[in-house]
Amino acid sequence: MTQTIAHLGPHGTYTEAAALKYLTWLTQTSNDTAFLCPYPSILQSLEAVAKKQAQFAVVPVENSIEGSVTMTLDALWRLDRLRIQHAIVLPIHHALLSIAERLDEIQTVYSHPQALAQCQNWLDRNLPDAQIIPANSTTEALQHLGEDQTIAAISSQRAAQLYSLPILASPINDHPENCTRFLVLSLNASQGGSRTSLAFSVSANQPGVLLKPLQIFAEREINLSRIESRPTKRSLGDYVFFVDLEADTRQNAIQSALTELETCTETLKIFGSYDVLPSMS
Amino acid sequence: MTQTIAHLGPHGTYTEAAALKYLTWLTQTSNDTAFLCPYPSILQSLEAVAKKQAQFAVVPVENSIEGSVTMTLDALWRLDRLRIQHAIVLPIHHALLSIAERLDEIQTVYSHPQALAQCQNWLDRNLPDAQIIPANSTTEALQHLGEDQTIAAISSQRAAQLYSLPILASPINDHPENCTRFLVLSLNASQGGSRTSLAFSVSANQPGVLLKPLQIFAEREINLSRIESRPTKRSLGDYVFFVDLEADTRQNAIQSALTELETCTETLKIFGSYDVLPSMS
Repeated sequence: MTQTIAHLGPHGTYTEAAALKYLTWLTQTSNDTAFLCPYPSILQSLEAVAKKQAQFAVVPVENSIEGSVTMTLDALWRLDRLRIQHAIVLPIHHALLSIAERLDEIQTVYSHPQALAQCQNWLDRNLPDAQIIPANSTTEALQHLGEDQTIAAISSQRAAQLYSLPILASPINDHPENCTRFLVLSLNASQGGSRTSLAFSVSANQPGVLLKPLQIFAEREINLSRIESRPTKRSLGDYVFFVDLEADTRQNAIQSALTELETCTETLKIFGSYDVLPSMS
Repeated sequence: MTQTIAHLGPHGTYTEAAALKYLTWLTQTSNDTAFLCPYPSILQSLEAVAKKQAQFAVVPVENSIEGSVTMTLDALWRLDRLRIQHAIVLPIHHALLSIAERLDEIQTVYSHPQALAQCQNWLDRNLPDAQIIPANSTTEALQHLGEDQTIAAISSQRAAQLYSLPILASPINDHPENCTRFLVLSLNASQGGSRTSLAFSVSANQPGVLLKPLQIFAEREINLSRIESRPTKRSLGDYVFFVDLEADTRQNAIQSALTELETCTETLKIFGSYDVLPSMS
């Protein structure tokens, strides 16, 4: 069978690198063939799965420096029936790409706002006078390079290779431990694994509404590895909570927790249990 | 006394409108005179207060559609001694500015990524083929307008007036209830009020580390109106939690809660208790 893997494009993004890792794993562990299909936005790559134009979508969900990718969380809350199959963690090493020969020639730096934020101290120290201009993706930033020696873009070393562009400095991210967690989503039932992701909304402005859901997990000694709030977009102070649990929905304790959680939340969405994709050669 | 109010510039930003509201309140309720001082970033406006170059900084902290302004949360965690004096809530009405006479002339739209996200459905419906390009602020986006009838920028109606630019469509935000909460910070002790903001980190990867802090408030029936996690930037899965309480640090219950909280958190920062600035004519 041929599987389509949707991801945020264009060619050369970090998400494409994660999708490629998933493609390799998929073809090595099954008889399937697969190909990548780039989409202009995270939402569109998830909608492709919801509309059955693609079997899988690979989307970034969290970076160790910049935090949640809110577009992904909001899309997961909005779309139905998507289930997490795997997580993929990729180290992020940003490079400064330019045809300039020296840093002091650079007057303008383009990149995605997340990448710019992750290199902010390096930019302040090394290019204090450069104009910093946001782009829609690290790859789109490369379009500005052209023949101009005063322009640089922050992108991946992989993009530099793909587009045959010279690297002026690398790595330039402020935190060497920089990594991003991606999720693989599909309409299939989740496979089970050590981590469970869910989201719920509660009735706004009632005292202690968040306490009860948290107690349900605590009573069963289920650890929360993450809690993130996102606005419901109804009014200021009205939230959806995204929670990651160190638990597998195939366990009895978590099944009873989820049944009880249903009674004290307004809307509850369970995205499934999954593991981090193992490293493959 | 003359007070300086630092804010994210340039002239015409929503943050400037919030700072102007604070200036009006300040001069009407005291004998002080005050002036606004724009800074190129949120961090720099907060640092101006930390370095005593300005007495106050006005920064956006949360939008009802797009959620937390992560740059503000990260700066508050990093900088010491800043205390919240007031919150300011402003309705946000985005307008499409352009010298074009009809929507179908527009091929390119510039704006701050938050504003673009808040008008995404409108753009999809009305300008499906336009190229969307992010800018550093809603005001910076206006620099691209020039004499070109194919270009538009999303900014405020106030910016349209300030820069004498024609409004092609308004309001264009997808959610009419769109509003942003701003904070006024200074080195002064906080004045007290119905809401208390704090942040804490906990030892990573210990079971139930988040449960204990939440129980401390629950036992005293102190409601959490908000909880938000931000990465500590040490490793993936290691967080700082930002919490807003419906409580005043002058109350005994909250004082004992904060004392107990100190014992089960790694680092605890209390930003103070404050009220929303009353509406003024």
